[in-house]
Amino acid sequence: MSHAPVDPVALTADLIRCPSVTPEEAGALVLLEQVLADAGFDCTRVDRGVTSNLYARWGKKGANRAFGFNGHTDVVPVGDRAKWTRDPFGAEVVDGWMYGRGATDMKSGVAAFVAAAVDFVRQTPPDGAVVLAITGDEEGDATDGTVALLDWMAANGERMTHCLVGEPTCPETLGDMMKIGRRGSMTAWFTVTGVQGHSAYPHRAKNPLHALVSLMHRLTAEPLDEGTDHFDASTLQITTVDCGNPATNVIPAEARGTVNIRFNDLHSGESLTARLRAEADRVEAETGVKIAMAVQVSGESFVTPPGELSEMVARAVTVETGVTPQLSTSGGTSDARFVKDHCPVVEFGLVGKTMHAVDERVEVEQIRRLKAIYGRILRDYFA
Amino acid sequence: MSHAPVDPVALTADLIRCPSVTPEEAGALVLLEQVLADAGFDCTRVDRGVTSNLYARWGKKGANRAFGFNGHTDVVPVGDRAKWTRDPFGAEVVDGWMYGRGATDMKSGVAAFVAAAVDFVRQTPPDGAVVLAITGDEEGDATDGTVALLDWMAANGERMTHCLVGEPTCPETLGDMMKIGRRGSMTAWFTVTGVQGHSAYPHRAKNPLHALVSLMHRLTAEPLDEGTDHFDASTLQITTVDCGNPATNVIPAEARGTVNIRFNDLHSGESLTARLRAEADRVEAETGVKIAMAVQVSGESFVTPPGELSEMVARAVTVETGVTPQLSTSGGTSDARFVKDHCPVVEFGLVGKTMHAVDERVEVEQIRRLKAIYGRILRDYFA
Repeated sequence: MSHAPVDPVALTADLIRCPSVTPEEAGALVLLEQVLADAGFDCTRVDRGVTSNLYARWGKKGANRAFGFNGHTDVVPVGDRAKWTRDPFGAEVVDGWMYGRGATDMKSGVAAFVAAAVDFVRQTPPDGAVVLAITGDEEGDATDGTVALLDWMAANGERMTHCLVGEPTCPETLGDMMKIGRRGSMTAWFTVTGVQGHSAYPHRAKNPLHALVSLMHRLTAEPLDEGTDHFDASTLQITTVDCGNPATNVIPAEARGTVNIRFNDLHSGESLTARLRAEADRVEAETGVKIAMAVQVSGESFVTPPGELSEMVARAVTVETGVTPQLSTSGGTSDARFVKDHCPVVEFGLVGKTMHAVDERVEVEQIRRLKAIYGRILRDYFA
Repeated sequence: MSHAPVDPVALTADLIRCPSVTPEEAGALVLLEQVLADAGFDCTRVDRGVTSNLYARWGKKGANRAFGFNGHTDVVPVGDRAKWTRDPFGAEVVDGWMYGRGATDMKSGVAAFVAAAVDFVRQTPPDGAVVLAITGDEEGDATDGTVALLDWMAANGERMTHCLVGEPTCPETLGDMMKIGRRGSMTAWFTVTGVQGHSAYPHRAKNPLHALVSLMHRLTAEPLDEGTDHFDASTLQITTVDCGNPATNVIPAEARGTVNIRFNDLHSGESLTARLRAEADRVEAETGVKIAMAVQVSGESFVTPPGELSEMVARAVTVETGVTPQLSTSGGTSDARFVKDHCPVVEFGLVGKTMHAVDERVEVEQIRRLKAIYGRILRDYFA
């Protein structure tokens, strides 16, 4: 039986034409299941809640060597449609660029690893397994996405021995960066309750804004750290402060503020929560206001230390692109934060400049090069 | 011709029954004009814009000795009507207290000085003039209220040689405080414009909230001063900070903050504006954001130094109440800030505890005692 190679550009276009804004499946996973099943992959839809997910394995269940790809077919909303110059779900190609929501984040990445995996198992069937864990909710709250896939895998004796997440990782040029970990991320919401009063009589009131400014100043005056071996410095950003008091002669009763922290391996969600609470306690003691704090830790920091996996991926990138990738842990969160509890994981994908933006687009030639990189990784892994 | 004394309690009740929420005249000034004209006062309605004002003089125009009273018949809105236990415009008397909007601020004060003035000119016609300058807009923006009366007086050769403003001045007990000046008041609105970005990449953004927190911290970290001979320390209060950014992964582009300053005679609106701008400039230079600032000075600080007028008023208060009034410059603004440019001015009136509040009320006996105090001041002034 002979098969033509899978064209990752056509597959990207077909995926873009599925309007799979989280949590809509919109035909994207159905399409991938068809392509993969045709190539001999065992496919299982692992849906949970409103989220659709696809698990596909070529080779034996529980193989000692099982290389995994992880990615997502869901996309963020179009935003202001009027600002797009092309149909966001049209996959139109202009001057070598394909336009559409998900063009870089990350229907192209999924298409590239699906095409690479199908060609690989057809051309050089490996002694081991190739696993694809593809979710329909990475852009949403991600509770029933890759987590559901990993839960289902654990419950069913399915495994990956190493995993590559195909998210866009390159800031400027294909090949210039891969990720070997991610900083942690957390958000803290503060509500400061003081005592309302007249601006002319501040001694009779307790101004919650003065306390909140004092707290925010404490939190931002000094950097959290200077960075570590594999991580940039942690950052803390105030994302909003709100009070809504229109009266200039009134000291308000309540004010709210939010901070978002991206943290490295010097911290944990727990240690930072304690630190924030201690600062809030100090301000409470100094000012007499009450400060309520709610915290959500969306991911702890993690790193897959440079070694077999990262060296293999970096080598494949360099051979195919001529560029030596930087090993980074920068940026936001990704589903690698879930995968890292199951096996070593790194991330490598396209240049991410237009992700989430109006006129999101991908250079079609880059999709082919990404497939070539993923194909080389598979060959090297099972060599 | 013989007249019974004017009852200030009945007059207060009649005034409360006029629903004269700024800028509505609602019959209040018409009623006063009737009472004063009957007693031989020359009355002139000095209306400007939507504001109604009443000027009344007994005695010769331009007299060398002309004692003035200043006050207002407008009231602030009722607020949440459901929370009132009595009709806010009913003037109901329960257990010796009269209820209604304006019961303390300041229909009772106006009734007391009108009653005192009428009785005084009837019983002991003075060698001089008694002037009443009553406005229908003190609670609003006050641009066409007492200012219009003073403009009209200057243009028409009318004058007061000394003036008493009948606003509530006593914190706890009738007689415990009079005002010989007021702190200045100003408001500054800051709009900080930074560069929007992703919370995970703060180095690519400029967070306007960090700049605003830094500015607000600078403005509130140290007191403006320690007070002066006649003034408490100046105060600066943040009255609101707003951003409205719901996304914890987004650094916002803009944030706004407002401060209200009550300042003593160490400062002026101009000097404080320069100081605020200088702090904003420093934060701009340190952070790279742009800070726009708008300022409104609603009144400069002023003081009528203790002397003839304040001693006379204090003596009358002590004789009638047994209490020695503190000479204060505390509190918000009043129309004394306009009168002080025309003649020496002090303020004395009732206990102000329920002003602007739900169930605003006045002890009826206090209205009679206030009339007695004002009557004694008139007799002493012309003695």
